[in-house]
Formats: sequence, structure tokens, C-alpha cells
Amino acid sequence: MDSVLDIAKKIQTMEIRGAGTIARAAAGALKDYSQQLDEKSVKKFNTKISNAANILVATRPTAVSLPNAIRMVMGYTGDTVDEARTDLIRRADQFIESSKEATERIGAIGSRRIRDGDTIMTHCNSQAAISVIAQAHKAGKNINVIATESRPRRQGLLTIAQLNELGINTSLIVDSAVRYYMKDVDIVVVGADAVTANGSVINKIGTSQLAMAAHESRTNVIVAAETYKFSPRTLMGEMVEIEERDVSEVMDSEKLSGMLHVSVRNPAFDVTPSDYIDVICTEVGAISPEMSYIIIRDILGWDLQDMLDNEI
Amino acid sequence: MDSVLDIAKKIQTMEIRGAGTIARAAAGALKDYSQQLDEKSVKKFNTKISNAANILVATRPTAVSLPNAIRMVMGYTGDTVDEARTDLIRRADQFIESSKEATERIGAIGSRRIRDGDTIMTHCNSQAAISVIAQAHKAGKNINVIATESRPRRQGLLTIAQLNELGINTSLIVDSAVRYYMKDVDIVVVGADAVTANGSVINKIGTSQLAMAAHESRTNVIVAAETYKFSPRTLMGEMVEIEERDVSEVMDSEKLSGMLHVSVRNPAFDVTPSDYIDVICTEVGAISPEMSYIIIRDILGWDLQDMLDNEI
Amino acid sequence: MDSVLDIAKKIQTMEIRGAGTIARAAAGALKDYSQQLDEKSVKKFNTKISNAANILVATRPTAVSLPNAIRMVMGYTGDTVDEARTDLIRRADQFIESSKEATERIGAIGSRRIRDGDTIMTHCNSQAAISVIAQAHKAGKNINVIATESRPRRQGLLTIAQLNELGINTSLIVDSAVRYYMKDVDIVVVGADAVTANGSVINKIGTSQLAMAAHESRTNVIVAAETYKFSPRTLMGEMVEIEERDVSEVMDSEKLSGMLHVSVRNPAFDVTPSDYIDVICTEVGAISPEMSYIIIRDILGWDLQDMLDNEI
Amino acid sequence: MDSVLDIAKKIQTMEIRGAGTIARAAAGALKDYSQQLDEKSVKKFNTKISNAANILVATRPTAVSLPNAIRMVMGYTGDTVDEARTDLIRRADQFIESSKEATERIGAIGSRRIRDGDTIMTHCNSQAAISVIAQAHKAGKNINVIATESRPRRQGLLTIAQLNELGINTSLIVDSAVRYYMKDVDIVVVGADAVTANGSVINKIGTSQLAMAAHESRTNVIVAAETYKFSPRTLMGEMVEIEERDVSEVMDSEKLSGMLHVSVRNPAFDVTPSDYIDVICTEVGAISPEMSYIIIRDILGWDLQDMLDNEI
Amino acid sequence: MDSVLDIAKKIQTMEIRGAGTIARAAAGALKDYSQQLDEKSVKKFNTKISNAANILVATRPTAVSLPNAIRMVMGYTGDTVDEARTDLIRRADQFIESSKEATERIGAIGSRRIRDGDTIMTHCNSQAAISVIAQAHKAGKNINVIATESRPRRQGLLTIAQLNELGINTSLIVDSAVRYYMKDVDIVVVGADAVTANGSVINKIGTSQLAMAAHESRTNVIVAAETYKFSPRTLMGEMVEIEERDVSEVMDSEKLSGMLHVSVRNPAFDVTPSDYIDVICTEVGAISPEMSYIIIRDILGWDLQDMLDNEI
Amino acid sequence: MDSVLDIAKKIQTMEIRGAGTIARAAAGALKDYSQQLDEKSVKKFNTKISNAANILVATRPTAVSLPNAIRMVMGYTGDTVDEARTDLIRRADQFIESSKEATERIGAIGSRRIRDGDTIMTHCNSQAAISVIAQAHKAGKNINVIATESRPRRQGLLTIAQLNELGINTSLIVDSAVRYYMKDVDIVVVGADAVTANGSVINKIGTSQLAMAAHESRTNVIVAAETYKFSPRTLMGEMVEIEERDVSEVMDSEKLSGMLHVSVRNPAFDVTPSDYIDVICTEVGAISPEMSYIIIRDILGWDLQDMLDNEI
Repeated sequence: MDSVLDIAKKIQTMEIRGAGTIARAAAGALKDYSQQLDEKSVKKFNTKISNAANILVATRPTAVSLPNAIRMVMGYTGDTVDEARTDLIRRADQFIESSKEATERIGAIGSRRIRDGDTIMTHCNSQAAISVIAQAHKAGKNINVIATESRPRRQGLLTIAQLNELGINTSLIVDSAVRYYMKDVDIVVVGADAVTANGSVINKIGTSQLAMAAHESRTNVIVAAETYKFSPRTLMGEMVEIEERDVSEVMDSEKLSGMLHVSVRNPAFDVTPSDYIDVICTEVGAISPEMSYIIIRDILGWDLQDMLDNEI
Repeated sequence: MDSVLDIAKKIQTMEIRGAGTIARAAAGALKDYSQQLDEKSVKKFNTKISNAANILVATRPTAVSLPNAIRMVMGYTGDTVDEARTDLIRRADQFIESSKEATERIGAIGSRRIRDGDTIMTHCNSQAAISVIAQAHKAGKNINVIATESRPRRQGLLTIAQLNELGINTSLIVDSAVRYYMKDVDIVVVGADAVTANGSVINKIGTSQLAMAAHESRTNVIVAAETYKFSPRTLMGEMVEIEERDVSEVMDSEKLSGMLHVSVRNPAFDVTPSDYIDVICTEVGAISPEMSYIIIRDILGWDLQDMLDNEI
Repeated sequence: MDSVLDIAKKIQTMEIRGAGTIARAAAGALKDYSQQLDEKSVKKFNTKISNAANILVATRPTAVSLPNAIRMVMGYTGDTVDEARTDLIRRADQFIESSKEATERIGAIGSRRIRDGDTIMTHCNSQAAISVIAQAHKAGKNINVIATESRPRRQGLLTIAQLNELGINTSLIVDSAVRYYMKDVDIVVVGADAVTANGSVINKIGTSQLAMAAHESRTNVIVAAETYKFSPRTLMGEMVEIEERDVSEVMDSEKLSGMLHVSVRNPAFDVTPSDYIDVICTEVGAISPEMSYIIIRDILGWDLQDMLDNEI
Repeated sequence: MDSVLDIAKKIQTMEIRGAGTIARAAAGALKDYSQQLDEKSVKKFNTKISNAANILVATRPTAVSLPNAIRMVMGYTGDTVDEARTDLIRRADQFIESSKEATERIGAIGSRRIRDGDTIMTHCNSQAAISVIAQAHKAGKNINVIATESRPRRQGLLTIAQLNELGINTSLIVDSAVRYYMKDVDIVVVGADAVTANGSVINKIGTSQLAMAAHESRTNVIVAAETYKFSPRTLMGEMVEIEERDVSEVMDSEKLSGMLHVSVRNPAFDVTPSDYIDVICTEVGAISPEMSYIIIRDILGWDLQDMLDNEI
Repeated sequence: MDSVLDIAKKIQTMEIRGAGTIARAAAGALKDYSQQLDEKSVKKFNTKISNAANILVATRPTAVSLPNAIRMVMGYTGDTVDEARTDLIRRADQFIESSKEATERIGAIGSRRIRDGDTIMTHCNSQAAISVIAQAHKAGKNINVIATESRPRRQGLLTIAQLNELGINTSLIVDSAVRYYMKDVDIVVVGADAVTANGSVINKIGTSQLAMAAHESRTNVIVAAETYKFSPRTLMGEMVEIEERDVSEVMDSEKLSGMLHVSVRNPAFDVTPSDYIDVICTEVGAISPEMSYIIIRDILGWDLQDMLDNEI
Repeated sequence: MDSVLDIAKKIQTMEIRGAGTIARAAAGALKDYSQQLDEKSVKKFNTKISNAANILVATRPTAVSLPNAIRMVMGYTGDTVDEARTDLIRRADQFIESSKEATERIGAIGSRRIRDGDTIMTHCNSQAAISVIAQAHKAGKNINVIATESRPRRQGLLTIAQLNELGINTSLIVDSAVRYYMKDVDIVVVGADAVTANGSVINKIGTSQLAMAAHESRTNVIVAAETYKFSPRTLMGEMVEIEERDVSEVMDSEKLSGMLHVSVRNPAFDVTPSDYIDVICTEVGAISPEMSYIIIRDILGWDLQDMLDNEI
């Protein structure tokens, strides 16, 4: 159980970041936990696994991929503990594999939209977005990247380190400089934390104003998003809840507590409307954001009527 | 001369910040310097003062107020050193006085556009903008302020401290959260570093994307700008040069030097087009940005024909 | 037959209003009529029912739900009059039931998009829109509604009466005041008379300028529409005809007839483009307007190839 | 005094409507009152006139023309009652004359922008706008007018009556149908109640959404406004206060009082931003809205520095 | 083989123009060629046909319909040369027939969106667009057409000749006059060379600025496009390559070669974003551009998973 | 008189093109004519000159500079023929000189807004625009130009020849390709035939759609316009009449005459709204378009009150 709690904590503190990494970590945590359990009774095994799953789901309420990953793993069956464990491990491995492959395929698809000589802007630290950029670079295209710092957690520093490793020329800018440089940007590539049923994209705070600035300059926006980011629950009208993170990410808490009239607001994500998005690159193709309903129904395979009958 | 160099350095390192403060500091530095000089010859006195003036002007090329302030002080005349010094001091005092008053008057004018119950967004740390907010608060209007952090130098922390002192409820947000909160903002109040002849506003990096987000949400934008911010040289086609500041403001220089393919871009200002500005509140009234030409000609009193004849 | 004519008249004079109410009234009228007929011959029974159906369809050419409802009822079969009558009644009851449920489900789905503290604007008198508002209120959310008068028939007076009954704080405004209040509106909720194959919404005159004003202020627009409002014929290029109603609804006919050069134009509906609509809440989920084709094909189950082969 | 009170009441109840008519009525009322007074003492004469002026000014706080007219008349001087009365009458006559002429001249200027075959949309009942339309018709241009009803007071009925009298083909529509017809409108002509220092136009509620719909359809908007409508006080940051009129104009007060949760909001005017206005036709020329400052300073002749020194 | 080379040349030199005509010509060329071949061995027959197919595909890389047509014909099977030839001919005939019918059906669907009295603007020389216009005319609607010259090849001259033949009133304008006349245009009808998976339309250079001007004037844009224009490869991120044609189409090559610093750029197509398109009329209905994915998957019947597995 | 008629013909046939060239040619023609006249009577001299002036003014009704130039020359006075001739020649020379200098000064002012590395788009063949480009090049800035063909008269060919002569890298494109290349354009520089009192720019057909495309891509538009292009008559509401030129410029007249249902429309200019213009560079400075009224009043020195009193 310690390893599950450890992963849960790392997800919560954002030591483990990125929707795919979170999802794979959660799947992996369940797998590891199942291997540590020496229960004899399937029922007890299931209960313990289920408890672990609930703990993991609760760490990041806005991470759509987390419950998706766990739901996929939790579909395991088995009459004996061994059978159950074996199936659970198989499902976890399969999810981890296909989700890793997804990032690779998105890179292949998205990179075709990058032209030789392009200047690309990206925000925060999305592995799917970096996959698009990296594969364009690997294909021999001469590209330049502008990466935002992405306050408050400054994940842009991770992005420039990764791009530097790949040998891609990159400039780091503060988040306020997005519009200043946008006129010279050829294409914007960002990731997604969730995609709603009507094609809005939930992503790191700042994405929506970056997309707005791109729209103002007629710069196309590519969202790189694995299909497990598409949120079935939004079809039922539900809005993706925007998590507010700790104020200490923004400023020194002690200093803050000395100011009676001041508070800090620290939303982790924002919502980019589909109007500002040219294309969503998923592992099943480059689609318009409005196609989200079809992804949820035909690719993720949800039975929407069932969902609606149960929920409303 | 040490005091002049000291002020020059403080302007350059942004220890002295804000166009008005800079302008007054420069005027004051010349005044102080004139009092320290014990030259007997007017000619030598003038040369030394002139050298000091040139040093001061060179510290911040984009600060329109700086040359304006110095030009006003340098208009002194006198046949003896005493006469010259006396006139110089009088002019410096007068500029300092009127520029301080300007901020107050702008506050009085701008605050009338704030309504009871308004949520105001501001950016960076502009004394003119704070004057507008403070006078609205003093007039008994119930207001809330959202202040941006304003990376890289985080002048937003100064703003929240000032507003806290005044007892005004304020929320601090990162620069990326501007669009997230904009839908609920009633009015935006920002300062200006310069206003061009065709009504664009040069201000702290991030201002233009804040104004764009305001425009998208039908939120009016007030620019609070003393008339000494209006740039006569832009009438001659000249663009306001955007200063790039030290990369260490954005990230650790040592870490940066270890990354071959990464650079940091750190522009200090950006340009907000007049389309995104509802009104510029100056000490001579609340005008449309397009009226900039008239301010330069009729209020600042420049002889444009002369300027053009000399420059082209 | 009198009851059919009576219902037909009430539909025509708008005593019976609202697409759902009309549809259910028409289905009910056929059911009642079938119960009154004491024909012995199925053929005569069918002819009489068919005549009644035609009379009902002809009352409101723009009401998409009317032919949809009647087509569903008219699918009855039976070898004897009794069998036919029984099947007709069953189908009518089923349509009435599911259409009523639809409004309830739309309310459940749409109300999730209303947040605590929201100010909602609505237009005319749509039961689906009111269902959204009412369920948000019932869920304990503190909401305020702004309702337009909706000239010429002033159905806004019905809306405020219904909302008052529910204990929801409501302000009535004239239609010209929509933009004046829009900046402070959080979300717009309107109904629909028809949805076209490419996602446009036909609704009460004034809806499109309300949606335009919402768009200008970055206010999201929810359209609450039962799937029977989606028009299959528009897939064949057909435009939804906009009915012009009697001039006396707008001004005194006698006075008008005294003015040689003056006429009155009284269109009942207008067309809101999909660009101005955030989401359409149907009983099968919250979708983007562009998904209309899928609703017509997969939910309403039309065989489009057949339609095209027959029509073109 | 009865005649003054009578005029004041008629202004308040909107029996006297239209900024020009109000201004002339107020000037005329002071003139008439001065003729009725048989005071011997100039001081008493002045006091009584001054009281009457104050009563008149108070009737409509948003009518810029009213204080302008009264200020012009109140500039009378005289050492004796006869002298004072004579000068007052002269000034009143002059204002009335020039204001009437203004409407005529605006018609001449604005009508040149109407082309043969144009369809014109107008809102409410502006004499300046009608002057533009009438002179285009008189010049032999074949025009059609679409006039809005202009709820709540339905001044559109006055407009269609006037246009009918002139033999101009006119269609009356409800306010909600503005966007429905706008695509086929060639030019919009509206009046103004006030023009602010930064070029916004305050006019009858509904004007701003009409202008927005015109902008969406690339239809030019002419504002017909006498220079006495330009508001000097807005230069000092003051916003034009939007009067809320009696709820009974919108719905039956008794019915309303029976509904606990319902209120009526009845703003008389709204604000159209300069972005939506192509040209303002004044009696001194067809100018861009941003030129408002120049009109106030150079045509109305206000000493702005004085205003600012006194007010702030 | 001469006939194949002849057709290939005519496609390349644009003697054969228009995506449908090209596709049918290519299908016809393969059919004719198969009839000329007197090979005895199926293998040799297949090789020769395959070579011919490759030559044809290579003539116009951006013409989506060309590979689609050839792929359909190349699906022939047969154990003997006779069998193979017979099947090839059958498939070629069927494609030619259905593609001709498509144009007719698109005309029937699109023409329903033309209203009596409409002014229609069209660009270049699209048979599908002309079919829409012609059927509206044949249905007795009184219409006027504005046709652009469509430099550099001036295909507008073909369009006006065709429309003249049909007795439809048409005005010819230069491409620069599009915005000048757009305000008075009721609807724009253009063809397409390709439609991408996210709903962009690739068509003759100039289409995108025509659509932009239409959008600015709230004029709806109909794209008339056979389903064989929808590009499956764009789903994999691939961009439609924009062919650059010979500079001599734009200016005299000799004159050009005398100018050292001058080059000519001659792109044949441009990309119109889905935001500027109201509806795409295909032979399977009038759909929103975002529905492109569904057309490719459900109408053209591509197995996208297969495509992705093979390509990435 | 022959020389006057010759110049008049050359203006009419556009052999003499460009507003400045036309204005100078007309001034020169009057000068030459005055030198040829050997009248003894001043009255006869004046009459003949006046007739010549009227002929010249009538050649191009939309060329604002033409009447301006002639009015300036016609201000000559003199009691004898010799005196009159001398004064006329002096005034013509002065106008010619100052108008030539204007182009140079505009180049100096406008070129400051061009940055090193910029790609500039221009339309038609404006000497003022070319002056801006040429001086940026002369200042050592590395620039590239995209020049449109400018159908129907293809003045773009003159532009590329001039730029080639100056050694400036230039690409020629057809007018339809404007939007295709705009995303990569840094700044647009065009001339003007007239500027209206509310800041609209009348220029060669196609300018307004080029400016619209620039606006869509956040590309700034510089209009290079001598102050003699500003039209005082537009202040009186007058619209600048758009000349329609001969159809044979667009297509072969004979071919056209064979097509009963086809006509050609050939407007020479269009109107660009001030919203699409960043700055107008005149010889008296870089101003916002809205400043046009001030140029007409304060630089051209028109007495507007007089104009209005005489005209209305």
C-alpha cells in the first residue's frame, strides 16, 4: 500500500505531472500493488485493489485520464487471486503500452502539419506536444520553438531541457510575452488535460489566452491529445471542474498572511473554446474539435444512452 | 556626480521604477547635482550639467518620460552660475510638482469611470493606475481588484502591498490567468510607458494580451497616462524601441549557459493597439487614444513642422 | 373532427404554443379523434385519420416537431379498426411520454452548466429552457434570471409568471435592452423551434441578436432542444421557412390601413448561426451544434440515402 | 411659473420628446416665463429665472442638450429687468433658431451619404435622423425605410407617421427583428441623446444592439447629432448616467406587484461604442466619432483647463 | 498509350480542368487504354494498366479526385484479360456515371438555398457550383450572378460563357473587386478541389479571400463538393500540398528573366478555414464542414485504423 | 491648348497615372498653357486659363489631388497678363516642388516603421508607397517585397520594374493570392487616391480586401498619402464617387458583345475603412486616420464654416 500512497502523493504534489504519465503511473501502481498482495481470498483482494483505486482517483479531480486508466485496469476478472492478478497486470500493461504508443502516433500525425522553417510556440510541458515537435525535428525539418515559462510551477523549464536534449533551438519567454511573439509564430502546439463533448479543451492555465492570441494573428493551433483525454461525463452537461492549487505556488504564504486585504487565486487550468482550435491530433487521426462526440462514442466506446439513463 | 551615477544605476537596475518616478528622479538628480557643483564659469557648469543629463537619458532608451523631464529641466537659462542654478532648480521643482499632481488628477478623472461594485483588473505596478483605483475606493465605492504577478520582476507584489495598505480587497493571480478571470472583470486599469502619435500604448510586457482578453469580453480598458508619456518622435514614424532586459530576470543564467540550444528572450514592454483601449485618462482629460496627436501638439506644445524639418 | 379542428385552430392562433406542446397536442388530437371514430372499415378509418393529420400539419409550416410527432403516430398499423386504433393510441401515448421526459432530461443536463451565483438571460417562453433554469434552482443554486418581453406576443410575461411561481428572482426587460444587460450575464439559455442539418438554430424572432450580443460579451449560449426539433429536410438543402404572422400583432390594423406608405413586417422566427452557440442540450446529451447530422441520422434514425433518392 | 412647470412635466412624461425639442422647449419656457414676470428688481428677476432654470434642468438628468440650452440662455446680462429680459429673449430665440437650423443642415450633410435605392434602418424617433432621410427623399432618391417599434414607449409609431406624411415607403418591425432584416439594410441612421468625449454615443435603448448588428453585416452607421449633444463633462471622466424610467411603461404595475420574485428594469438609453459608428453628422460636418474632443473644445468653445481646475 | 499520355498532358496543361472532369477523364483514359491493349497475359495487362495509372496520378498532385477515381477503377479483378478488361470498364463507367450524377444532385440540394431575387457570387469555373446556380435558375428563381475573372488562367471567362448560354444574368469583375461588391451579394457559391478531415476547403487561389469578405459581410458561403473531393490522407495530419504553377501564366517569362531581383509566385490553390463556410453541399446532403470526418469514414468507407496502422 | 488637351487625354487614358503625377501634370499644363497664350487682355487670359482648368478637372472625377492642384494654381492674381502669368507660374512651380518633396518626406517617415528583415506587401503602383520601401532599402534594411499584379491595368508590372531598378527583392503575385501570402507579411504599404474626413481611404480597387486580409493576420497597414489627397468635400457628407472604367480593360469588348446576358463591371477604386489602417504617413507626420479632420482644417487650411455655409 505504501507504493500506492507514494504514487498518489507524487500525483498530488505534481512530482508526477502530465495526464499520460499520471494515468500510466496509476495503472502501474495498481499493478505493483497487486503483486505485493498475498491475499488468499479473491474478495479481499478485490476490496484492497478497489480501495487503492479510489485513493488514486481522488488525487486529481480534473485529470480525466486518471479515472479512465483506472477504470480500464479495474475491468479485470478472475475466480482466483492468481487469475485476477494476472488479468489486472495484463490490462495495466496494455493500457501503459497503448498510451505510450498514442503519444508516438500523435507525434507522427501532428508533425506532418509542421513545415520546414516553422516557428512553433508551446505552453507548459506536454509530452504529446513535444512528441509532435520532436518528430518534425527528426524528419529533418528546420524548426524553432518558443516555450513559455508557465508560472506558477514553471514547467516550461522542463520543456526547454527536453528540447535542448533533442537539439532543437528553443527560446524561453515569460507568459506575458505570448502576444508579443505571436505575430511571428507559424503554429501553436499544446497538449490537453481534457477535451469536452462539445470540443472545448481544458489545459494548463494560460492555454486559452495563448490560443486567443494565435487566433488574433491567424496562427493555427494544434492540440495534441490522446483519446483517453476525452471526457464522457461532459456529454451529460457536466463541466470540467477547474482545480485551485496551493497559494504558495504563487507567492510566499507567510508574506501573504501578513496582508489582510490580499488573497491569491491559483486555478490550475483554463478552458479553450473550439473556435480557437484548428485541429486536435489524436492517435486515431487529426480531427476537428467538434468531432469529440464521435471519439467518445465510437473510439472510446461509451454507451451514452446507458450513461444518461443512469445519471439523470 | 556620484549622486547622478547612483540615480542612473538605480534607474537601469529598475530599483527606481515607473515612468513618473524615473522622470522625477532624473529631474531631482540634475537639481542635486547643480547644488553640488562649485564651478565659477557658467560654461563649465553647463557642460557638466549637460554631461550628467546625457548619462541619465541613456539609462532607459524606451522611457519617454525621461528625456521629456530632462529636456524641461535643461531649458534653464542664466548668465551666472547662480542664476543658472536657480533657474534649473525652479524648473526641476516645477516638473516634479506638476508630475505628481498629474497622477492625482488622473486618479480623480479615471475614478469617475469606476462604478460601485466593480471588479478591476490591473497589471504591473503603475502609480497612475493605482491612483485611479485608490480614489474610487476613497470615494466610498465598493471595489475588488485583481492584480497580476507581472513576471519576470513580479511588480505585482508591490501593487498588492500598496492596495493592501489602502484597505482595498485584492487578489493576486499569475499572468497566465488573465483570460480565466476576465469574464468577471468590469474594467481594466493600466498605466503606460509611452503613447504613440497614432494612439498605441507601450506598457509593461503582458499589457497587450490583457487588453486583448478585455476586448474579447467587452470589458473596457482605461489607460492612465500623464501627458509626458506621449511620444512626439513617433509622429515622425519612429517606433518605440522595445528594450530587452537581462535573461537572469527570467531564469538562472548558469543553468541557461549549460543548454546549448536554449536562449531566453526578455522584452520589457509590448504595444497595445488603440482598438483595444476605451479611453486614456490624462491630467488634461479622458480622451480617445486617437487624440494623441492633439496632446502632443496642443498640450505638450511641440512645433511639429520644426521637428520634421530638422529630422527628415 | 371538431376536437381536431379546435386543436388546429389553437395551434394556429398560438393559444397552444411551444414546439413540444404543439407536438403533444397534435399527437393527442389524433388519439382523441381515433377514439371518437366509429368507422367499421379500416380503410375509411385510415382516410379520416389521414385527413385529420393533414389538417394538423398545415397549421404551422415552420414547426418541425409537428410533422415529426404526426409521422410517429401515423406509423400505426392494424388489420381491423380496433387494432389500428389501439396501435395509434399506443404510439401517441409513447410520443407524448417521451417528449415530456425529454424536457425533464434536458433540464437535468443543461442545469449542470449553471453555476451557483449565475445570472441567466432567456428569451420568449421555452419549456426546455425553463426546465434548465428550474432544475438549477431546485439543485439549490442561487440564480437570477433576466427575461425579455418578446414582442410582439409578449411571451416573456408567461415566462416571468412561471419563474415567479418557482420562486426564482427574475427581471423583465424590453427586447431592446438585451445588449445593455448582457455584459453582466453569465449564461444564456434559450429554446429552439428547429435545428438544421448544419447546426443553425431557428427560434423566436430576436434569438439571433441575443446570441450575437452574448458572443460579443464572451457569454456562453445554451440551446435547450429536444431531438424532435432537428430537421431532416434541411439536409437536402431546404431552408426552414420563416413564417410571417399577422400585422395586428405589431400594431393596430386600422391605424395602419390609414397610412399609405407604411407596412408591417412580422417574422415569427430568426436563424442563429452555430458560431454563436456553445452547446445544444438535448435529451441524449450536451453536443456541439455541428453534431446535428449525427442526431438526425443516428438518434432520429432517418435513412438519408432514401430521403435523397426520393426527393432529388 | 405654471408654464415652466407645465413644460417641465411634459419633458418628464416624455410628452415633449427628442433632445432638440426638449432643449428648445426649455429655452422657450424661460423666455415665456421672463415675459410673464413683472418683477421690478433685477435681483428678484434673476432669482426667479434661476429657480425656473433649475426646475427645468432637473427633469431629465441624461439629456445633455437641456443644460446646454439653459446655460446658453442663462448667459443673459442686464442692469435692469427690461435689459435682462430683452437679452434673455434674444439668446433664447437665437438658440432655438440655430438648433432648428442644425437639424436642417445635418439633413443636408447626412443625406449625401444615402444612395439611390438604399434601404435605411432607423430606431426610435429622432428628428435629426428623419431630416437625413427626408432630404434624401426630397433629392429624388428612391429609398425604403425600416423603422423599429422602439419599446417601451413605441416612438417608432411617431416615426412611421412622419415618414408616411412625407410619402416615404416604410416598414415597421419589432425591436427583436433588427438582425433579421439587417443583412438587407444599406445604411443605418440614428439620432443621439449625447456624445461623450471619447466618441461613444448615448441614445435610446436598443441603439447599441442595432449598431452591433449593422457592424456584423458591414452596414455603415450614421449618427445624426447636433453639436449641443456633445457632453463636455465626460472629458472629466464622468459617465453619462443612464436614466431608469417607470416600470409601468413595460408592464402593468398591478400585475407586477402580484409577483413577489419579479421586477422590471427599464433603462431609457444605452451606450454605442465608437467602433460601431462610421460617421457622426453634425451641423459642422461629417466627422469620425473620435473627433468629439475637438467639437467640445473648438466648436462648443469650452475652456477645458478651467473645467478641470474647477472640478478636480 | 498515346491516348493516356494525351489525357495526362491535357490535365497537366489544364486544358482539362475541374476536379470532376479530371477524375472522369482519367477513369475514361484507363478504360480506353484497356480497350486498345491486345495483351494475352493478364499479368502484362495489369502491369501496363498500372503504369498508365501511375502516369495519370502524377499529373496533378493536389487533385484529390484523381487518385480517388483511379483507385476505384484499379479495384478491377479478372483471371483473364477479357474478364479484367470487362470489370475495369464496368468500374470506370460506374464512376463516371455516379460522378456526373453527383454534380446534378449537388445542384438540386444547393439550389434550394438560393432564394428568388438573390445575387450570387462565384469564383473560377466549378461545374458543381454552376449546377447549383443553373438549377436555381431552372426552378424559375430570378437570380443575378457576379463571376470573378480568376487570374491567372481567367477561368471566369468560361463561367460567364456557360451562364450566358443558360440565359442567366451575369457580371464579370476582376478578382480585386470581390470586397467592393460583396456587401450586395446574398450568397456565395464555390466549388472545391479538396476538403480536409477537419473541414477546410482547398480551392482555386482567391477562394479564401472571397470567403473572408463574405464572412465580413455576413454573406453565407456554400461549397459545392462531390464526396470524392474529401481527402482521407489529411486525417493522418497530412496537409494538402499547394501546387505552384508556371510563372508564364502570370507574366511574360522573357520580360521576367530580364529582372534580376524579381520572381513570380503562382500558387494554384488556397485553404479556406471551416469558420468561413456555412454549408458544404455534397451529393449525400448539405452538411457542416466539421462533418468531413464522417463523410470520409461512413460515405467513402475508408478504414481509418488500417490507414493509420499502415502509415504511421 | 493642344498641350492641355494632350495632358487631359493622357490623364483620362491613364497614360499619366498616380495622384501626385496627375496633380503635377495638371499644374504643369496650366503653366505651359499660360506661356503659350499671347493674349493682351487679362480678362481674356483669365477666361482661357479658366477653361483649360475646367477641362483638366473634368478628366478624373475621383482624383482629389487634381482639383486641389488646380485650385492652388488658380489662386494667381495680376493686373496685367504678364503679372498674372508670372504669379501663375510661381504657384504652379511651388506646388510641383512641394508635392515632389512630400513623397520624399513620406518615404523618410514611413521607412522608419519598416524593420530589418521585413516582408512588405504593396498593391498597384503608388510612388509614395514605393518611396517608403525605397528609403527603407537605402537605409540598409534587408527587405523583401510582394507586389500584386493589380488587374485590370496590371500596374504591378510597373512596380516590380521600379523595385528591380532599385535592387529590391520582389515577388509578383496575382491579386487572388493576397490572403495566401499575408500570414508571412510583416507590414503592408499602400498609397491613396483620397482620404475622407472620417479617415476612410479611397485607393485602387483591391486595396480594401488587402487591408482586410492584413487585419485578419494582425499585419499593420501603412497608407502613404500626401496631404493634398485629403478630401475637404467629404466633410460635407459627400461620398467619394467611384469611377467605373472601360470594360475593355477587363475583357475583349467584341467577345463581350456576343454574350447577351453578360456585362462587365470595372470600378477603379474601393474604400478601406479606418479600422483596417494602422497609420497614415503624410509629409506632416505619421497620424491615425481619424486625424483627417485636423489635416483638412489645420494643414490644408480650409475654412470649414465657409464651405458649409456655401454648400448647404
